Amino acid sequence: MLIDSDQIRAMEKRQRAAFVNSLSGFKSANLVGTADRAGHTNLAIMSSVVHLGSDPPLLALIVRPGGEERHTLANILATGCYSLNHVTAALVEPAHQTAARYPADVSEFEATGLTPQYQQGFAAPLVAEASLKLGLELREHQQLAINGTHLVIGEVVLVDIPERALMADGAVDLTVAGTVAISGLDSYHDPRIIKRMAYAKPGLSPRSLEHQTADMAARGRYQRV
Amino acid sequence: MLIDSDQIRAMEKRQRAAFVNSLSGFKSANLVGTADRAGHTNLAIMSSVVHLGSDPPLLALIVRPGGEERHTLANILATGCYSLNHVTAALVEPAHQTAARYPADVSEFEATGLTPQYQQGFAAPLVAEASLKLGLELREHQQLAINGTHLVIGEVVLVDIPERALMADGAVDLTVAGTVAISGLDSYHDPRIIKRMAYAKPGLSPRSLEHQTADMAARGRYQRV
Repeated sequence: MLIDSDQIRAMEKRQRAAFVNSLSGFKSANLVGTADRAGHTNLAIMSSVVHLGSDPPLLALIVRPGGEERHTLANILATGCYSLNHVTAALVEPAHQTAARYPADVSEFEATGLTPQYQQGFAAPLVAEASLKLGLELREHQQLAINGTHLVIGEVVLVDIPERALMADGAVDLTVAGTVAISGLDSYHDPRIIKRMAYAKPGLSPRSLEHQTADMAARGRYQRV
Repeated sequence: MLIDSDQIRAMEKRQRAAFVNSLSGFKSANLVGTADRAGHTNLAIMSSVVHLGSDPPLLALIVRPGGEERHTLANILATGCYSLNHVTAALVEPAHQTAARYPADVSEFEATGLTPQYQQGFAAPLVAEASLKLGLELREHQQLAINGTHLVIGEVVLVDIPERALMADGAVDLTVAGTVAISGLDSYHDPRIIKRMAYAKPGLSPRSLEHQTADMAARGRYQRV
């Protein structure tokens, strides 16, 4: 069925939010951990982390204006650092609950039972229960004129990852890390591997990484480092 | 295991790209369809589409400088429009093959056997074989000073979606649309639903949308419109 601009505009507000939030495809599921200058922690689920470059290792985060996310943004701007923690299936309920509009003086860590974890020399709290955790330092921030959302660019300075999830070629097997994906505003998914593709070249047919696929079939995952 | 900035910097280039591209979590899988002013088509897979806002319906796309993606960017800037087409499991091989560095005069539609499809009043080609297709008009473009990547912001003006994938509350069931997710540079995944969560509120325990979950269990999907 075809849906045009007028029909999107005519949707009821929450219906439109649910609809448009579904259109980009599957989204990353990260808990953003921050603290204010006094060390009061904050935790917020976000589905808008996107890869920006690998040298230096940069990730971008879209933060909506207002709402719960404004505590996160204020902390990032005040301290210059934040953590990203992959949501796993076991963490879906507390992770989703961080989206509730708690007052600024309530830590979502306490409210949801998740545990703040600290790394030497890094001020923002990580989530102890997450399997893959990143520490980032703020590198650039701008408010986009088009709709007031904030573009937050950070450099990855710290990665805490299960060793068995790291593959020989540097890629991370997110299915071993247990990372989930989000669709829309509220649906959580367990992504099963279909195939891993070899580097694409003109004149060569598309082909999967066969030996890794065989290994994957035998052990349920790719060959490790 | 802990990996710090120095260790990331010391990685071999392709290893670092594979590693850092894995860190954001699961990514959207979209074929970006464009044409130049003469109507010559181009198609490129990208995993960097992110939701920016629903009113107006805006999606952002990160485009790397240089490489295959520069044809896509040139076409978007020349014509002001582009399509985003969700990759399904059946389309993984041709979709991945669009990443090969074909010359500018070779259409990835022809090279991969995918079919350009046109909608009245919209100049960019959609992918006939995709189940969920979006038409976007360029609203803003900027090159990010930090690493030269391009931020392309577009408004969704056209949605072609299977009717049975549209749920009563406006959300799209991407598992019915058959949309896949990407991890890293080359891994394609089929995301199975874990649960759909109810709107989070302070003082209320996290809870899934039970009736929809029961329906989902019975029919393998949520209740439809």
